[in-house]
Amino acid sequence: MAAGSTVDHTTLAALAAGLGGDLITDPDAMDGYRRDWASLVPAGQPAAVARPRTVDEVSHCLRWANEHGVSVVPRGAGTGLSGGSTALDGCLVVSLTRMDRIREIDADERLAVVEPGVLNADVGRAAAPHGLVYPPDPGSFEISTIGGNLATNAGGMRCVKYGVTRNSVLSLQVVLADGRVLETGRRTVKSVTGYDLTGLFVGSEGTLGVITAATLRLQPKPPGQTMTFVAVFESILDAGEAVAAITRAGYVPSVLELMDRATINAIEDYKPQGLDRTAAAMLIGQSDTADAEDQVARMAACCDAAGASASFCSTDPYEADALMAARRLAGTATMEAGPTIVEDVAVPRGRLTDMLRDIDEISARTGIDVAIVAHAGDGNLHPTLRLPDLEAPTLERAHLAAHQICSAALALGGTITGEHGVGALKRPWLAEQFDDTIASVHQALKSALDPRGILNPGRGF
Amino acid sequence: MAAGSTVDHTTLAALAAGLGGDLITDPDAMDGYRRDWASLVPAGQPAAVARPRTVDEVSHCLRWANEHGVSVVPRGAGTGLSGGSTALDGCLVVSLTRMDRIREIDADERLAVVEPGVLNADVGRAAAPHGLVYPPDPGSFEISTIGGNLATNAGGMRCVKYGVTRNSVLSLQVVLADGRVLETGRRTVKSVTGYDLTGLFVGSEGTLGVITAATLRLQPKPPGQTMTFVAVFESILDAGEAVAAITRAGYVPSVLELMDRATINAIEDYKPQGLDRTAAAMLIGQSDTADAEDQVARMAACCDAAGASASFCSTDPYEADALMAARRLAGTATMEAGPTIVEDVAVPRGRLTDMLRDIDEISARTGIDVAIVAHAGDGNLHPTLRLPDLEAPTLERAHLAAHQICSAALALGGTITGEHGVGALKRPWLAEQFDDTIASVHQALKSALDPRGILNPGRGF
Repeated sequence: MAAGSTVDHTTLAALAAGLGGDLITDPDAMDGYRRDWASLVPAGQPAAVARPRTVDEVSHCLRWANEHGVSVVPRGAGTGLSGGSTALDGCLVVSLTRMDRIREIDADERLAVVEPGVLNADVGRAAAPHGLVYPPDPGSFEISTIGGNLATNAGGMRCVKYGVTRNSVLSLQVVLADGRVLETGRRTVKSVTGYDLTGLFVGSEGTLGVITAATLRLQPKPPGQTMTFVAVFESILDAGEAVAAITRAGYVPSVLELMDRATINAIEDYKPQGLDRTAAAMLIGQSDTADAEDQVARMAACCDAAGASASFCSTDPYEADALMAARRLAGTATMEAGPTIVEDVAVPRGRLTDMLRDIDEISARTGIDVAIVAHAGDGNLHPTLRLPDLEAPTLERAHLAAHQICSAALALGGTITGEHGVGALKRPWLAEQFDDTIASVHQALKSALDPRGILNPGRGF
Repeated sequence: MAAGSTVDHTTLAALAAGLGGDLITDPDAMDGYRRDWASLVPAGQPAAVARPRTVDEVSHCLRWANEHGVSVVPRGAGTGLSGGSTALDGCLVVSLTRMDRIREIDADERLAVVEPGVLNADVGRAAAPHGLVYPPDPGSFEISTIGGNLATNAGGMRCVKYGVTRNSVLSLQVVLADGRVLETGRRTVKSVTGYDLTGLFVGSEGTLGVITAATLRLQPKPPGQTMTFVAVFESILDAGEAVAAITRAGYVPSVLELMDRATINAIEDYKPQGLDRTAAAMLIGQSDTADAEDQVARMAACCDAAGASASFCSTDPYEADALMAARRLAGTATMEAGPTIVEDVAVPRGRLTDMLRDIDEISARTGIDVAIVAHAGDGNLHPTLRLPDLEAPTLERAHLAAHQICSAALALGGTITGEHGVGALKRPWLAEQFDDTIASVHQALKSALDPRGILNPGRGF
């Protein structure tokens, strides 16, 4: 049956019974559970929306769906940017937002045990009094859930030094397609008993199981004061060169972000931050090492040598916070200004300049305006396609531009998604990155764990 | 058929033909390929030993084995400590030591592309002129191959700060059971396209495929001078407390190793290093941050507070190198002194003292002498069982002691293997760590990728 199968009332009643009768089937009430932030991905009409509170309720939902061949679309806060949690026709949406407890902070072992509906920033806030940090910080960190972060292996600004979500997970509790409950990993820092199931489920975009708890690694808060530098450029290509030079020199920034003129202006339009609207590009970098002041000075010097028109280092934490807050507005500011497709490619760090050049050419060729923000230190770019309208010819040109951006990234040895996931949005270009062998290995693993193919079908790979 | 199947001459001739006729079938010549360093694991008699030079030759070997239902035991240098590369009766041993080229060092992107037969230390030596480091450094780093390191997800002394082998791998080339060649991952720092196949193959102990190339992440050499501290204790439990205190205080050593009196004396017996034979335990720690001198002083102070009888910090790199060299002798010194079983459990760092106490009790109870060396900062211990002889009753007591050590680690929330792998040695205790669900998930993944079960059967899980 899979997606689109119709479910009768008796069957739904059985589902509701295992959820204490708490099941949404009213179309209006379900509407808020149909989409994520990839607003241009078409959303289907679910058969029902379940909001389980416990692992047993999730298990009940999946057993039920597996038995009836109903597709399951798990979702957290719905802030995804690839349409990975967009509803499918006739599916069961499983919203994990009610499983929102931080079960434990173990300061001595530096770990947190959390449910999937906990907001990323709340983990950080719970860790802070213990002098600990949860490093992965996607742009959405104040509003996105850990479950969604895990499903997409979310990145963020601190990843350049501290790694992505997968690097911060010790173990998971996962409900499998047939309702069984799997416990992966250990609370120890090291364990090589068996396959890396934890890593396999992280980033699997809801296609292999539903994560119901996670043990996360926390890091000690850096002891010294974080230092910040800013550099502005008259050419974005020079900014790309500066990033390559910083990497080449062996510096390890804790943040290294790039914004282009369009992004800077979108932020200033949205909420003035005093950024230089005339700059072609701006780099913001941080260091949190004991010699941070020296490190940022050296990185700023790389920018100067690469042709920055101005650079400065700040030792003022308020100024640094303001700069980071401005950077964090980029996504919202750009998306609030009109219809967008947020791209998410990554290239080897030394090819950043090539990618920036390619994007400029693709924008010119397709006539689609592109605003760029990038986790530059990781070579991960978010070229945001800004659509003047939603007419068919515009959408066609936007699709072409997105395709060409993905192709260009691949041609540079890159990837079609750096941190947002394949979801539904990136499926058309997956075949350009995957050959038959890797595609068939994905399918074999998927079939092994979800033989009826009920889990988020058509997403992720 | 699987293990034990007999292969006739015509069939072997077909195998040899795809290897340019270069195939070992003489029992004497095969003898050196039958065992790893887990000397007490019984070794079978292989049908043949292949030493491929190219991915095509590996592919040929696996296609052949899959067609004929012959078990394949991949091996590198044979320094494994869990019997994971011990030959099976009638198997094809695939030795990867001839695939020993470092194909590329890309200093700008901080990566190395290597074949599986390259020695770990040679990657480090190739990276050094570029100011780069390959962090994973198992005790065997001068003699173990990257392929074996990948197969076991090897650890080492620097893992406490820089993570295990898996954290240093960007992409792999893997020959699947049916001979197809899979390319996982990307050369980019970040990529979330598809499942984490790279992470899945790392640590899979030759049961899912044969790794024929790897793209490894290199790290910039720490800019400052690495500082070292040493603390000696009259009670090993105090040393355990010192480790917990260092972790709790949020320090991030780049090395934090523990040796007990038996280990210290084994080293002194093997090759005198001037260590204090009377100490119950010794901690060696390092810091490589910009404020390393301050960091080691603070960690040494934690030791003093935990009851160290003496501690000192060293700014002399020669002295530090000598200390680390002494520590690196621990494995060899203990193993050279007589028959051993090298255990490899890990516990949450705060439970290290409990584990040390448990080991002491198990040693007393079973009458098996145990020397302990530990990657203490990771909670990863190597209690080395020292057998007075190889008589059946002794082996039985040793087996009992090993079992009890694994059970004790599990009771403390730990794992039966921290970095050596399950191999053949740890299989008896796997069921104590794995419940039915996780065992069946392993089997499902194994069957998905190796339906005939030819790859290192009976190992790993």
